[in-house]
Amino acid sequence: MTTSLFSERVDLLDNPTAGRVSFVAHLSNRKARSKYEQLLVEGPQAVRELVRFAPAAVRDVYVDVELVKHHHDLLVEARKITDFVHPCTRQVVNAMSSDAQGICAVANLEQLPIVSAEQFAAPSNELIMVLARIQDPGNAGTMIRVADAFGAQAVYATSGTVDMTSPKVVRASAGSAFHLPIVTGQFSDLVSALRRDGYQVFGTAVQATLTLDELLASRSQSLQGPVALVFGNEARGLAEDERELCDELLSIPMYGEAESLNVATAAAVITSAVARVRHQS
Amino acid sequence: MTTSLFSERVDLLDNPTAGRVSFVAHLSNRKARSKYEQLLVEGPQAVRELVRFAPAAVRDVYVDVELVKHHHDLLVEARKITDFVHPCTRQVVNAMSSDAQGICAVANLEQLPIVSAEQFAAPSNELIMVLARIQDPGNAGTMIRVADAFGAQAVYATSGTVDMTSPKVVRASAGSAFHLPIVTGQFSDLVSALRRDGYQVFGTAVQATLTLDELLASRSQSLQGPVALVFGNEARGLAEDERELCDELLSIPMYGEAESLNVATAAAVITSAVARVRHQS
Repeated sequence: MTTSLFSERVDLLDNPTAGRVSFVAHLSNRKARSKYEQLLVEGPQAVRELVRFAPAAVRDVYVDVELVKHHHDLLVEARKITDFVHPCTRQVVNAMSSDAQGICAVANLEQLPIVSAEQFAAPSNELIMVLARIQDPGNAGTMIRVADAFGAQAVYATSGTVDMTSPKVVRASAGSAFHLPIVTGQFSDLVSALRRDGYQVFGTAVQATLTLDELLASRSQSLQGPVALVFGNEARGLAEDERELCDELLSIPMYGEAESLNVATAAAVITSAVARVRHQS
Repeated sequence: MTTSLFSERVDLLDNPTAGRVSFVAHLSNRKARSKYEQLLVEGPQAVRELVRFAPAAVRDVYVDVELVKHHHDLLVEARKITDFVHPCTRQVVNAMSSDAQGICAVANLEQLPIVSAEQFAAPSNELIMVLARIQDPGNAGTMIRVADAFGAQAVYATSGTVDMTSPKVVRASAGSAFHLPIVTGQFSDLVSALRRDGYQVFGTAVQATLTLDELLASRSQSLQGPVALVFGNEARGLAEDERELCDELLSIPMYGEAESLNVATAAAVITSAVARVRHQS
């Protein structure tokens, strides 16, 4: 154990039943996150992005002492921003989270860019992804990562979408949840605001008036402006009233026997294609 | 309960500790699948595709009697091809699989198009996806679904890839595992055979000589011929010797702060873009 990595202000945490340990574990619960306005961040990738992109939000980092060497570079980064990097026994880290891979962190929600629609002004000429009642945290996290990778400037999450502060969402986003603002609100409020701001709002549906390939082939010029891409619930897609609020509905041409794509896959296909057009000009 | 859906040859299965029940559950184990040459197929979507695309492989279908109405159409389809649709108590179905959502099936491996390289002749001018040591069954299944959706004619799985007969792979493929041949073998054998057959083999890597956007912009004509897309292990990507066997390495341009994409997402981005070019001509 490289003790010099740790501040004198912290001791080895070795009691898996201590109050602090169950408090951290309890942050997997939405009500607890909301009550304490704190978030649990699991695994080296998500912790690293938290430390880099939202250092002011970091409260505590917990690391398995047996894995200090393995996480050395990340711990050095973390120590630059906080004294509260705690060495823990493996049992303690495992009691905090079964998905920590030896390291997890607690962050203040208030210092993270997860905001309501009223607090957020959409940038003027950008790409925005809208998650409309996405239920699965793995899908939601993957979609945030896709949005980030292809240059979206914000992710909107409509009411009924899985809680964006869920540790599973953050983990599936591979830390992209800390890279761009996440804006929450009612579908109609979010989409109306986007249209007012000049955004072209494309919904997605299996049955649609326009295919992605047609859009790319004939109307790529129109993709240079502000564009919002809206993806609906896994089982039911976009609801009738949600579709009506979009400017147009897009489908993805498919050539085999598969009837549909997983929503995160669909988001990757459409967002990457739109981003390619926007960056070619 | 709509008893007329069931043959007189079957009785209600109501003993969760019966030998038949533990046999089915045991098929989640690779060794058992290999020993008995049988496969467990979980959930309505995968069972439906099995019944439609590989009817000769179906041995038994098991359904929760309380969900007979819910699965009515699927049961009618299943009954057309087999007498062995068994009504079961909920406990029995749950003991067979925790992911059945009320319905599962057992199929013969031999009647499924999962073949070794020697048994398979690559079609002459097609798109093929190669999974090189993909470890996560969710990723592997999603990639099969992507390959199917974008018109690939086969999926190759190199040694070291997760077992393609795993129930988790089949489930994540949403039944696409029954839509196209899955070919297994050593990386070098599979890729050498593809190149001999005139395939252009594109590997994927974060650091590559060619970006997907460059390929699409300047050399789309070359994508009209036989093309193989190779995706490497989640943690380490393609190994040095695997890269060397590819004609060229491709990367995906990214515009945000995300360092990488999940491999199934990367497969969706590249495969959909290549398919679009092939279908525009």
